[in-house]
Amino acid sequence: MLYQLFYWPTIQGRGEFVRLALEEAGADYVDVARESGKGCGVGALLRFLDGRDIARPPFAPPFLKAGRLVIAQTANILLYLGPRHGLAPKDEAGKLWTHQLQLTVADLVAEVHDTHHPVASGLYYEDQKKEARRRAADFLENRLPKFLGYFERVLTRNARGERYVVGAKLTYIDLSMFQIVSGLSYAFPRAMAQAARKYRRLFALHDRIQGRPRIAAYLASGRRIPFNNEGIFRHYPELDAD
Amino acid sequence: MLYQLFYWPTIQGRGEFVRLALEEAGADYVDVARESGKGCGVGALLRFLDGRDIARPPFAPPFLKAGRLVIAQTANILLYLGPRHGLAPKDEAGKLWTHQLQLTVADLVAEVHDTHHPVASGLYYEDQKKEARRRAADFLENRLPKFLGYFERVLTRNARGERYVVGAKLTYIDLSMFQIVSGLSYAFPRAMAQAARKYRRLFALHDRIQGRPRIAAYLASGRRIPFNNEGIFRHYPELDAD
Repeated sequence: MLYQLFYWPTIQGRGEFVRLALEEAGADYVDVARESGKGCGVGALLRFLDGRDIARPPFAPPFLKAGRLVIAQTANILLYLGPRHGLAPKDEAGKLWTHQLQLTVADLVAEVHDTHHPVASGLYYEDQKKEARRRAADFLENRLPKFLGYFERVLTRNARGERYVVGAKLTYIDLSMFQIVSGLSYAFPRAMAQAARKYRRLFALHDRIQGRPRIAAYLASGRRIPFNNEGIFRHYPELDAD
Repeated sequence: MLYQLFYWPTIQGRGEFVRLALEEAGADYVDVARESGKGCGVGALLRFLDGRDIARPPFAPPFLKAGRLVIAQTANILLYLGPRHGLAPKDEAGKLWTHQLQLTVADLVAEVHDTHHPVASGLYYEDQKKEARRRAADFLENRLPKFLGYFERVLTRNARGERYVVGAKLTYIDLSMFQIVSGLSYAFPRAMAQAARKYRRLFALHDRIQGRPRIAAYLASGRRIPFNNEGIFRHYPELDAD
């Protein structure tokens, strides 16, 4: 099946978790808003959000068109893609557990966003810099260790070893862990340099995923949008650890 | 099956979305942290979060024990319960759509929480009052209309009529819509009095759900914890609309 991914064309953002899964799966997909031509571009994305004829409109990108289905919410898209591309456990308990972890990733992503936008996503960073400093400081002191410590613990407790987050095979949550560590390392290089010594399993997982042939090829390609200060993970040195 | 629900015993919070589904289903469940005795109380909840022998630890409450399964993340719990209790569509497209809407509810809930805790969930409201005023003002002006307008639109576009959010039968998302309107009305009575004139379908849905026999019985019972200023929906008059 040819998938159509709808996401903002200039950032990794939440769409990147889906892009990584599609790339690792070797799936056939079009990153619609990044293409030009008929039915492409940002206009095509906006038509799904604003069009009066969309029966089940997404609230926000990313969303994925798969045949007649239009699926939104990052974790929901991965819930759909996972079993179809060998990127999720086959048993129900494993599926729910993987999805649960992905929803915890979503919570972390929202908190990362709010480190630079604690007041309003519609305002510029410059208009909420003071609040961002307070929020980012709390994030690095309390929230980041809570999340990273949790994921490290999950790796440690995997009965099938710590090579993957769930079971003995790659699932989409491993790809999301890679993205979390990459993004946080871009945004908070000093804090993450310290974290690397503490959450060794998580960083080792990041490195293994980075080295997978399809992921490595993707990262080296023009399809991977570089991190930048328009996305979720932004590098403002004044928000990083000392 | 006897379910065990694990959630903080003194607030509605995120656990309430699960309680409403269990109540409407007439399911057999124990609200573990609200009970005393062996294996109950907050200690039992904390053992799942902190216990070294938990193979798949939840990141946070709520979580549901169903036989040997331990399922966390509110939307994930509802994803599990829905089809088992006739509270979700039977087809895959409908299941994904209902879950997608529930994840959008989760996003809204996180934003509501941040109106009173924009800096740090670990700090008191009093320590982030100034930031809360800015965030709440933006929430009421931009985010609340965006979310309520979206859910109203979804009701309008339901091909099977506007009695339910999805299809022609009650699903768990209807119960969540009830909780959203109830909670927001507690937190922001002035803003929601205005909203009631604009989002008529959503408020009508709230009233219908409230009148369902099992929900009405639940709301009148001691099992329903009253709203209070420890939960997600808090009433601080200074954060409400003028």
